[in-house]
Amino acid sequence: MTSPVIITVAMTGSIPRTKDCPGLPVTTSQQIEETHKAFEAGATLAHIHVRNPDETPSSDPELFGIVQAGIQKHCPGMIVQFSTGGRGRDQAARGGMLSHRPDMASLATGSVNFPNGIYENPPDFVDGLASEMLKYDIKPEIEIFDLAMLYNAANLIEKGLLKAPAHVQFVMGIPNAMPARRSILEFLLSELKAVMPDATWTAAGVARYQLPVNEWTLELGGHVRT
Amino acid sequence: MTSPVIITVAMTGSIPRTKDCPGLPVTTSQQIEETHKAFEAGATLAHIHVRNPDETPSSDPELFGIVQAGIQKHCPGMIVQFSTGGRGRDQAARGGMLSHRPDMASLATGSVNFPNGIYENPPDFVDGLASEMLKYDIKPEIEIFDLAMLYNAANLIEKGLLKAPAHVQFVMGIPNAMPARRSILEFLLSELKAVMPDATWTAAGVARYQLPVNEWTLELGGHVRT
Ligand SMILES: [Zn+2]
Ligand SMILES: [Zn+2]
Ligand SMILES: [Zn+2]
Ligand SMILES: [Zn+2]
Repeated sequence: MTSPVIITVAMTGSIPRTKDCPGLPVTTSQQIEETHKAFEAGATLAHIHVRNPDETPSSDPELFGIVQAGIQKHCPGMIVQFSTGGRGRDQAARGGMLSHRPDMASLATGSVNFPNGIYENPPDFVDGLASEMLKYDIKPEIEIFDLAMLYNAANLIEKGLLKAPAHVQFVMGIPNAMPARRSILEFLLSELKAVMPDATWTAAGVARYQLPVNEWTLELGGHVRT
Repeated sequence: MTSPVIITVAMTGSIPRTKDCPGLPVTTSQQIEETHKAFEAGATLAHIHVRNPDETPSSDPELFGIVQAGIQKHCPGMIVQFSTGGRGRDQAARGGMLSHRPDMASLATGSVNFPNGIYENPPDFVDGLASEMLKYDIKPEIEIFDLAMLYNAANLIEKGLLKAPAHVQFVMGIPNAMPARRSILEFLLSELKAVMPDATWTAAGVARYQLPVNEWTLELGGHVRT
């Protein structure tokens, strides 16, 4: 029983700056080139955040479009996934680049505390992003930062705002959100099976939890993400 | 092995209005009298919300003080617990009545979606309320509306902002927050045992989930709340 494992590369998140991490790709051409290297090393899905000139997280549709076009040109067949999350991005602008029709886009299905405030995804906003993704035929990666978001995703399917089978990612280890505990991941999987039995899944640990969560994910049969 | 079960009465939540529920006690004298009836019927803890003249949830310290004094007078020995939650209350005002030194006060340890928006309890706000409760020697009832809040409570103990043993209440069945599922309650209890082994607990189901959650709670050894 072997099925191919999808290896995701997320070159640039929302938080690090080049002063902390000099090799961080923050311009579109750096991001395209680093994604290309990961593609040649076997990554099959690129999770895209873009940055403003001051390196803060950006929602600029043009930047997303440039990175998308570069990856399509240099990395044939690679799945392009836009992030609709990211701290410090204005809520109304977070879905503005979906008209570029990436293959996938992230969709957090609820709100939770993050280290310095609330990661705000109120119900109407979630429904709105889900509708946009349906309209542009974009497959959501459902981002689960806390337990309730799992059932909220199942409710989106019931409301006709999300197509089954869904793909979910459990994100663990962000302070104030769901911690990185194997007991939690195992429970999430048993609940996933109960409420969205045909869903595919992956899990990501943040910072020092990246490797242990990858290990649990492989052991428990999920896809892996860097 | 018998230990007394605490029966909590919450006469008035944040949502119902007298137009939906004509018997709802919304004035302080109605609340005192209804609490007194519940006290005579065996309730030992009163969870207090107060209302503005238009019946919207209030943070007015004076109203809380009047209900507290009335209960102390009519219901000797009853535990008085103030709600710091409640939808539509201004964040800065939610702890303003703690100087009345109720026996207990509710403390939600994170943020989550509710039916019409985010129930906002950002990290600094949680720490601030916890500090006030320490200062006035008020025992918090930790309100858990989603999984991460459980670990956030354990972190408050580690930071010295919450005294062990903690008392937690799992709240289930609010749309967009943690649903009422026995599998979840059982998981919460095993995690509670792992991260706050000496904590006491109760669980509350909202609306039509009230009775099933009470039943699970009794079966699983918790305290019951109306
Ligand atoms: Zn290249
Ligand atoms: Zn991301
Ligand atoms: Zn009386
Ligand atoms: Zn309450």
